[in-house]
Amino acid sequence: MDTRSLRYETLADEFAGLIDRRVLGPGERLPSVRRLAQEKRLSVSTVLQALRTLEDRGLVEARPQSGFYVRRRAPARAEPEPRRTPARPVRLDISQRIVNVLQLNARAGIVPLGAALPDTALLPIAAIRRLYASVARRQPDLLRSESHCNMNEPALLRQLLRRSLAWGGPLEAEEIVVTNSCTEAMFLCLRAVTKPGDTVAVESPGYYLMLQLLESLGLKALEIPTDPRRGISIDALDLATRDGREGKVKACLLVANASNPLGTILSDTDKKRLARLLESRGVPLIEDDIYGDLQFGERRPWPVKAFDRGGNVMLCASFSKSITPALRCGYVAAGRFATEVMRQKTLASGATNPITQNVLARFLESGAYDRNLRALRRAYREQVERMSDAVSRHFPEGTRITRPQGGLVLWLELPGQTDTSALFDRAAEENIAFVPGDLFSPSGLYRNCLRLNCGNPWTPAIEAGVRRLGELAS
Amino acid sequence: MDTRSLRYETLADEFAGLIDRRVLGPGERLPSVRRLAQEKRLSVSTVLQALRTLEDRGLVEARPQSGFYVRRRAPARAEPEPRRTPARPVRLDISQRIVNVLQLNARAGIVPLGAALPDTALLPIAAIRRLYASVARRQPDLLRSESHCNMNEPALLRQLLRRSLAWGGPLEAEEIVVTNSCTEAMFLCLRAVTKPGDTVAVESPGYYLMLQLLESLGLKALEIPTDPRRGISIDALDLATRDGREGKVKACLLVANASNPLGTILSDTDKKRLARLLESRGVPLIEDDIYGDLQFGERRPWPVKAFDRGGNVMLCASFSKSITPALRCGYVAAGRFATEVMRQKTLASGATNPITQNVLARFLESGAYDRNLRALRRAYREQVERMSDAVSRHFPEGTRITRPQGGLVLWLELPGQTDTSALFDRAAEENIAFVPGDLFSPSGLYRNCLRLNCGNPWTPAIEAGVRRLGELAS
Repeated sequence: MDTRSLRYETLADEFAGLIDRRVLGPGERLPSVRRLAQEKRLSVSTVLQALRTLEDRGLVEARPQSGFYVRRRAPARAEPEPRRTPARPVRLDISQRIVNVLQLNARAGIVPLGAALPDTALLPIAAIRRLYASVARRQPDLLRSESHCNMNEPALLRQLLRRSLAWGGPLEAEEIVVTNSCTEAMFLCLRAVTKPGDTVAVESPGYYLMLQLLESLGLKALEIPTDPRRGISIDALDLATRDGREGKVKACLLVANASNPLGTILSDTDKKRLARLLESRGVPLIEDDIYGDLQFGERRPWPVKAFDRGGNVMLCASFSKSITPALRCGYVAAGRFATEVMRQKTLASGATNPITQNVLARFLESGAYDRNLRALRRAYREQVERMSDAVSRHFPEGTRITRPQGGLVLWLELPGQTDTSALFDRAAEENIAFVPGDLFSPSGLYRNCLRLNCGNPWTPAIEAGVRRLGELAS
Repeated sequence: MDTRSLRYETLADEFAGLIDRRVLGPGERLPSVRRLAQEKRLSVSTVLQALRTLEDRGLVEARPQSGFYVRRRAPARAEPEPRRTPARPVRLDISQRIVNVLQLNARAGIVPLGAALPDTALLPIAAIRRLYASVARRQPDLLRSESHCNMNEPALLRQLLRRSLAWGGPLEAEEIVVTNSCTEAMFLCLRAVTKPGDTVAVESPGYYLMLQLLESLGLKALEIPTDPRRGISIDALDLATRDGREGKVKACLLVANASNPLGTILSDTDKKRLARLLESRGVPLIEDDIYGDLQFGERRPWPVKAFDRGGNVMLCASFSKSITPALRCGYVAAGRFATEVMRQKTLASGATNPITQNVLARFLESGAYDRNLRALRRAYREQVERMSDAVSRHFPEGTRITRPQGGLVLWLELPGQTDTSALFDRAAEENIAFVPGDLFSPSGLYRNCLRLNCGNPWTPAIEAGVRRLGELAS
């Protein structure tokens, strides 16, 4: 991709600004594609790409035979602002608190706003069950004694390579290691490129399980400011990875597509900058793309991996959010670190169950994955919108809400000094789970923030839970 | 178990000595149980236990309605002697060499004397395939979104607890963590109780994958002398774990039942001493019991875990040698370290596939596992004997051979200065795999030793491979 092709982003940013400042109000029609192309001296395809980008960001919607309109609800609520983060890496001491908080999710009858888990009703588990029966019957060789020497089943490898074509791939067969989960993939990557005491750059706020991984490996975390709209600050990362800085950054670990908790999709321009910057600094990027297939717009966003030339990016993913977390199958495309990641996998857990690998391959191959994905994306998007509406109605004035571009969580910033950790304890008494904001920062930022899981279809119980949570927060 | 009950071992040792010195020759009948009980002033049950112990060690055989006889073949070949080991722990640098050596196993048409792998023909994979189909059909809830929050499937837990009754259990439900393999279990245990730079005591010779695990975790290995007949020296371990020693031992990692590569089963007396010693020194024991069900005698040997009172022993096992390595399911009973091991598992790979866990549970429950186990033990025992015979015929005069009490490998010590690493290269050219001895010692002992896999039914190709290997060794 060359720089000229990013003109569409400049145009999209311009319109995003107009919508943000209400120059273009909710429900207003945007100028036609033809007119914009003439006025801006851009090609029709560039203009269309800009409009689709706005659509992906949830700012406009296309109406067939009519054009693009500013979405009615997008600008209604303020979004959280990015925070200042500590200049130095910090040692982590957060694991036990994470364990305690997440335990609540397992309680019977809990209002499930905690862990980012999809409702089983949305998942294609009947099809997966049929495939287990069929694969076990039709592929007798999978359980052969020597078959566990193959880390990757060829059928799954083929599907992973094929799917990567949709987002700027292809991946290389040689760089792939099938794993038991996306978490295992990240764990192996961290083991491959760091040693205890090293510093890893992470988004702030960033996914708590990543912080827990760093803690368990004796690594320090350097928080990089992350804007709810634009994603991680490449400028701050640039500064943090300059030579001579105290506590040299040995790796960067982030979610570029529908980050967790913010739901931001980094722009292609920033992905490209990020890939180039980290490669030039010799800092490997571990990219968690578990939400990559779960964007709210039409286009599957590219991962940073697609902009990587030198094998510096390790792309990690699984199907826990899009098939079922019980499947236990993910992968990493580890670029130039593949040999070391493979060795780590051999030692940490050995090969991944070959029947499960082939079940997944058959499901991807059949087209059923894509069909279910369309329904799932629609469901997640609607559920995030309903959650957002309910928060607007029930939470105190001044509550800020993210506008996720994908995934299944919502991030709130509460007004004033609200302590969401105390709120968590009170909510637990009333059987309502959520994740308090301080879990997303090793330095304890975001004490007035919280994350809500939107993985469940809307029900009166969820509505009641959100209302009650809003009352408790007041 | 109290000390008086170990009288049977004293009697067994006495007879083992008589057999070793040929006071009792091959084919001779031992005195009757009744006579021995009278002469030694022991109970009939103690004498019977002594005779069964001798049987387990492969020294005598029971003939129905007749009595116990010295086995004809046992004393024919000399066994290797234990070696002096370095007094200090060593840093490891062995992983790459292990990877290179094991790669040969994957070559098409190789004579498979390398990795300790059973032949598929011996394994119950048709039954396992049927169970996959049946479990997927009948247990629809296993793939539910929230089911991955359970690390252990209740059905498997129940079977693991039940089976432990056969060897001095029971295990506690709360201490068990189901894993993807025995290797993963050991990896998690090491992560739970050590940090980089720590020293871990291991058998010498000891299983190379354990050494590779230590290396990958930045740990040092302290080799403890291990006698091919009696197993690890508890006296040496006692010395090594005394206070004030340089490089304090933080954990001990070993195979008490059919050790790898020696095939030794530690006596109950030594297991008990070992458990008490390590507990009193505050040194956790990580016990690999993967060969525990594969003894050659009649009685399932107890693991050290059975003699553990304070939760100091972490018992690790899987079904890779007794069902199929492709299953990818093992477990650890982690005693007082269970919470930390569970946490490590959550971070390293998350839960283990619930369908596979239930397939394993159903197989254990049905009795099919035990039926297949009897056939498998017989097969491994016969294959080890045939291999031993063939080595006697084809290898140079002076070659020493272990007399394994279980498992599926044989360990040879070649006479003189034979370098089995050079032998490996020459054998590889002729498509014959084995594992050279230096891989079993971090300090490079055992350069004139090698390990042979006996997991395959005897064929002319294997006979020819062993003959050719013997020629090359001459």
